Amino acid sequence: MGNVLPKPLRGIVPPMITPLAGPDTLDLAGLERLVEHILSGGVDGLFILGTTGEAPALSYRLRRELVAHTCRLVNGRVPVLVGITDCSQSGSVEVACAAANAGAGALVLAPPYYFGASQAELTGYFERLIAQLPLPVFLYNQPGNTRHVIGTEMVRRLADLPAVLGVKDSSLDMIYFHKLVRLFNDRPEFTLLVGPEELMVEAVLLGGNGGMCGGANIYPNLYVDAYRAAAAGDLELANRLHRRIIDISATVYRVAQDESGYLRGLKCAVSLKGICGDFMAEPIQSFGEADRAEVRRLMIAVDLLEA
Amino acid sequence: MGNVLPKPLRGIVPPMITPLAGPDTLDLAGLERLVEHILSGGVDGLFILGTTGEAPALSYRLRRELVAHTCRLVNGRVPVLVGITDCSQSGSVEVACAAANAGAGALVLAPPYYFGASQAELTGYFERLIAQLPLPVFLYNQPGNTRHVIGTEMVRRLADLPAVLGVKDSSLDMIYFHKLVRLFNDRPEFTLLVGPEELMVEAVLLGGNGGMCGGANIYPNLYVDAYRAAAAGDLELANRLHRRIIDISATVYRVAQDESGYLRGLKCAVSLKGICGDFMAEPIQSFGEADRAEVRRLMIAVDLLEA
Amino acid sequence: MGNVLPKPLRGIVPPMITPLAGPDTLDLAGLERLVEHILSGGVDGLFILGTTGEAPALSYRLRRELVAHTCRLVNGRVPVLVGITDCSQSGSVEVACAAANAGAGALVLAPPYYFGASQAELTGYFERLIAQLPLPVFLYNQPGNTRHVIGTEMVRRLADLPAVLGVKDSSLDMIYFHKLVRLFNDRPEFTLLVGPEELMVEAVLLGGNGGMCGGANIYPNLYVDAYRAAAAGDLELANRLHRRIIDISATVYRVAQDESGYLRGLKCAVSLKGICGDFMAEPIQSFGEADRAEVRRLMIAVDLLEA
Amino acid sequence: MGNVLPKPLRGIVPPMITPLAGPDTLDLAGLERLVEHILSGGVDGLFILGTTGEAPALSYRLRRELVAHTCRLVNGRVPVLVGITDCSQSGSVEVACAAANAGAGALVLAPPYYFGASQAELTGYFERLIAQLPLPVFLYNQPGNTRHVIGTEMVRRLADLPAVLGVKDSSLDMIYFHKLVRLFNDRPEFTLLVGPEELMVEAVLLGGNGGMCGGANIYPNLYVDAYRAAAAGDLELANRLHRRIIDISATVYRVAQDESGYLRGLKCAVSLKGICGDFMAEPIQSFGEADRAEVRRLMIAVDLLEA
Repeated sequence: MGNVLPKPLRGIVPPMITPLAGPDTLDLAGLERLVEHILSGGVDGLFILGTTGEAPALSYRLRRELVAHTCRLVNGRVPVLVGITDCSQSGSVEVACAAANAGAGALVLAPPYYFGASQAELTGYFERLIAQLPLPVFLYNQPGNTRHVIGTEMVRRLADLPAVLGVKDSSLDMIYFHKLVRLFNDRPEFTLLVGPEELMVEAVLLGGNGGMCGGANIYPNLYVDAYRAAAAGDLELANRLHRRIIDISATVYRVAQDESGYLRGLKCAVSLKGICGDFMAEPIQSFGEADRAEVRRLMIAVDLLEA
Repeated sequence: MGNVLPKPLRGIVPPMITPLAGPDTLDLAGLERLVEHILSGGVDGLFILGTTGEAPALSYRLRRELVAHTCRLVNGRVPVLVGITDCSQSGSVEVACAAANAGAGALVLAPPYYFGASQAELTGYFERLIAQLPLPVFLYNQPGNTRHVIGTEMVRRLADLPAVLGVKDSSLDMIYFHKLVRLFNDRPEFTLLVGPEELMVEAVLLGGNGGMCGGANIYPNLYVDAYRAAAAGDLELANRLHRRIIDISATVYRVAQDESGYLRGLKCAVSLKGICGDFMAEPIQSFGEADRAEVRRLMIAVDLLEA
Repeated sequence: MGNVLPKPLRGIVPPMITPLAGPDTLDLAGLERLVEHILSGGVDGLFILGTTGEAPALSYRLRRELVAHTCRLVNGRVPVLVGITDCSQSGSVEVACAAANAGAGALVLAPPYYFGASQAELTGYFERLIAQLPLPVFLYNQPGNTRHVIGTEMVRRLADLPAVLGVKDSSLDMIYFHKLVRLFNDRPEFTLLVGPEELMVEAVLLGGNGGMCGGANIYPNLYVDAYRAAAAGDLELANRLHRRIIDISATVYRVAQDESGYLRGLKCAVSLKGICGDFMAEPIQSFGEADRAEVRRLMIAVDLLEA
Repeated sequence: MGNVLPKPLRGIVPPMITPLAGPDTLDLAGLERLVEHILSGGVDGLFILGTTGEAPALSYRLRRELVAHTCRLVNGRVPVLVGITDCSQSGSVEVACAAANAGAGALVLAPPYYFGASQAELTGYFERLIAQLPLPVFLYNQPGNTRHVIGTEMVRRLADLPAVLGVKDSSLDMIYFHKLVRLFNDRPEFTLLVGPEELMVEAVLLGGNGGMCGGANIYPNLYVDAYRAAAAGDLELANRLHRRIIDISATVYRVAQDESGYLRGLKCAVSLKGICGDFMAEPIQSFGEADRAEVRRLMIAVDLLEA
């Protein structure tokens, strides 16, 4: 079921936020509501412990708990993908084993993010690590946070490993994405997903398989519908829904106009819909009342919330 | 005619390479062939003295000559846009006056590229400079070479000036471009063109007006056809042509895998088609024989040249 | 004793490499030899679990073991400083508690290194975290690896906390360091140490308190002597020793000319002196035989090893 | 006289600000007062048309005028060095010829600053350009504004050209500077000057030949005295004067806390001493009254101006 992954994996695989009841404490009731909310939108998978899930800020204990509870709640309805990006190889392996034990479908792996490394060093590291992993892997290109690009040549080499199923590209660089589409033109089973939701429609219109759209935590239908319109070639509908996606990006995610503004706005919006609280892991802080009121106002304006 | 600009300016406006006979010497015969070659492809304008035209490396005398000869050769068949980006305000004004005298249609202006400056400082500079210019202006967002972003807020302010007709965005950042489309949703006469040719199809599919595609120096029909397919919503054809555009980008422009590889590959390809030589302005050097042979091989492979 | 820190902490506090017997396994015999080797050079403290110690790549279990064993081996002869930099606050606290239990003298804290954050967000985070820590703290400015600068204004604010004893600056930016010296001109008990060994002599000549010199793992006397010459104002001797420090930097650390070249060269050099092996934590790999022979040759040339 | 350059060139060679009466107009009376003011401080040369001189923002006509008038006013009392950095090779040659005609002593050359280029491309460019120049040359490492580092290997190669007399390093990277000192240990006639005044004292204490200190436009004696103290090994005096240099940097240059704050503060300070006005070339704007009053207050505080 959920751990038999379609090849390629198509559609919307939301990067789930992590519901927290307090520092280092999962919000279990919120998690259950959130999983049901997202799945009710018709998504094609669920990605936990990514950047949107604040994974690097969470303890391993909490990460293991989140993996176990999420897989239990999803219960095979869709594949669960688990982020194992870590600066410590043993940390990556620990989370990967928890994922396998819980019945997750695949792992998502970005480069370790403290030390500089050449493409050759990273390729070797990935080869050695992937050989130890109990589940197949998606490569995660995330230079904004990790400072490392997974270059197209490195993707080409790693894609020869049977365990490597695809790439999630969060580089914001659509030329890179188009070059991946070209590279895997004759391997239609290799999955190419795009990270930022603002780029999902064009990625799908031009040959990508789908997207990991953070906004699907708030409003999963919007992204699923936009994906389906794009995949079906309904350009007019795809455009109309794409514009709503950009509306959210230009408003809700920009209440705080800094690097954490996206995460704070997103988690606040989910909490305003009554799904779970917006407690955040350090070092990021939830919005205060004024910013929260502004998010509410903007959500009503873009029609994500009733007035 | 050529200097009555459509609003918005739609379609393909190639950034023309500058045919050189030697250091600081225009290749007039090559220029004539190049102009005819590009115009024969059905383009909607011609942009000279941009990054692809090596403008910052050319003397003012040569820039003035290029403006005069190009406008004469084009003779009103399409609007000529002239880049006036410069670190010296008097240099920008000098080229702008040459453009007005020659009958060009508009100017293209990126921030000065030596000193750091805040968005407020740049906004003020643009306001003071634009007030002195004899022709309307497109803002040119080119952070890769100028180190300055023209932020969406700065665009919004400058777009209030009647002389500002639109934006050419070469930032590679499609989220930025989508936010511009959103910002000017109710001003359809404001032109939004995208810089890198690899992003033209998606820009047009999602509300942009066209692109400044360097590859149109080699093969103008390809880009014009791709634009028309995208603008007409013919997704299948747009995809097929988009893939050829990416093929060129992934091969011809990557013979030298460094920052000047695009320019050297492009000019070499034009010369292999017998249009003009590939002499380049310092500090960039034309390809040697081995790289030239490789470009020839790749052009045949992607079907831009007969074997 | 070792956990009564002098204020300011003056002199050479080497950032110790972490001797490893294999993946996730401490080399205890090597650790003992290394601690004795470094302490024999007359150093003024020992800093473990920094960048040079590959801390972000080590499991918490191994970090706790290293803290316990090192404090036991040092046995109060000099203060032990323990790096607690982490993307997860609970991880920082866990290592800090191990340090307090083992009798360490202080903690060293750089910003978390995955998410972007404003100076205000980082200041708040540091304030909340420091309030939970069982030992005093040195701030660690390390923008090269963490992507965050601890700006002078942020230092000024945090220095008001009684637990904050000083700054280790690894920014490579001596203007920043001079501004810190100016800022704490009237607080001589506040410690200012510089990170890269190549900048230690000038930092001390112009008002700094000392340095955390990685090369002191190989040759502690050199750095201690250079510090003492600089602190005593013996400019001729300081210059002579500074030039040997630069010799090492320009040769041993540049056998691999990439970002990990310093760490690989340093650990290889220590192993060539027979102190401990050069097994490295993933993703970095030890040198192969050819590079190892080159390090040997260079060490003989700069007189760090007998022929 | 002034055009027989000592080898090495030792001491303080101020990068002169450019006195302007208005847009594209030299302030000749101000220039004369400024030259006399600077020379009265005992400087060892005068560097015009650098970053501090706003060269990239000035027209060639104004640059030629400045060269001619400055050389006439200096009249051989010290060598005049002329910046010829330009994106256009013909522009560099034009200013170089003006410098030779006016009797300047040497040229100062940083990489062209629009296009990306590899170290090999830049080395070739410098070799071809230097062969055309009528005067000897100092290489100018200025990555902050040009985006290109002149790597130590490139310096080593270019230093084999007889026309290359030395390096001015404005990289802010003292490790790089120390490696240059090491590289030219056996060529004492090769000049190594440091750019930012905040790093001059340490550069001279550790083997450099002097500095190009912008603050010497305001207060030449301070920098000359600091240089002489450092060169003579008077560490106590060097420290005292270094602290005043840092005081100026941390106050006068930080009234505007952005990238142009140094230039605006410096030019304002010179005008407050009654030497010349602070009209600036676009895109930078002089301070308004509030900031000007703050500069005045700070200058009194650091004792550069009478109350």
